Amino acid sequence: MDDSLALTLRQLLTGRSVAALGTLHAGGPYVSMVPFALLEDASAFVIHVSRLAAHTMNMVADPRVSLLVMEPEQPGVSPQALPRVTVVGQALELTADSAAHARARDVYLTRFPSSAPMFELGDFSLFTITPDTVRWVAGFGQALSLTPALFAKAIRGGE
Amino acid sequence: MDDSLALTLRQLLTGRSVAALGTLHAGGPYVSMVPFALLEDASAFVIHVSRLAAHTMNMVADPRVSLLVMEPEQPGVSPQALPRVTVVGQALELTADSAAHARARDVYLTRFPSSAPMFELGDFSLFTITPDTVRWVAGFGQALSLTPALFAKAIRGGE
Repeated sequence: MDDSLALTLRQLLTGRSVAALGTLHAGGPYVSMVPFALLEDASAFVIHVSRLAAHTMNMVADPRVSLLVMEPEQPGVSPQALPRVTVVGQALELTADSAAHARARDVYLTRFPSSAPMFELGDFSLFTITPDTVRWVAGFGQALSLTPALFAKAIRGGE
Repeated sequence: MDDSLALTLRQLLTGRSVAALGTLHAGGPYVSMVPFALLEDASAFVIHVSRLAAHTMNMVADPRVSLLVMEPEQPGVSPQALPRVTVVGQALELTADSAAHARARDVYLTRFPSSAPMFELGDFSLFTITPDTVRWVAGFGQALSLTPALFAKAIRGGE
């Protein structure tokens, strides 16, 4: 991927903090909003969700998920020109007190410090979402399929 | 639903012109961006998509879909407070030259006049998405499940 496309992808994922999460409900798609963070090595997304929410029950029942992160609409800009990325991957609920949980909690709280009280509630869970495939649309007619490794490299940048 | 919640829902759907579309791909969820319009009676969403796009092939293979429309992030506003609506429904490809196609085309072109040239291309199709269920989150702790009839009434307003 050329440097300017990688930079646009990095800006999208650092600039946005909410994603559309697709889960399976009774075998069909269900799309809801989730705040997200990324692990430092960009190997997975991190979300913190109520166990009472539909999307959480869906992920517990079936780990297949998809995430869409998109730039917001701008007056005068065609929707088709908006940068956006679709991730298809696997959700994994992290066990409290594990090393993976501590690592994910740290990046999540760095991004969303005000969510700290929700980590004290028993009915919230941390999940990672590890990409299997990534579809990156940088603008009109600029679409690329990325491996998880290339995606992570673009996000980390300059390596 | 009280009038202020109905107004917030109407403002969300008239103010936003793109949605996150969840489709089924190989049995798992796939979320992508689509511009959308609404039929005048708010009985269905209208989308106009390339037959070469993954989401279109997914809808042709399985009509079960979900749409999420959300207010954009605002500095200083908790993501959990952002108004958003999740629709679960059925996608139907409209036959060219049908009355339903003409009606959907009109509302779509009213909202997206610059998309007119894409209606001349053979590889684009018009779909309606008819809600089965609607989940409306007006803000933190303000979530309602709506029937399609109540949803449509809130969007039409003042009836």
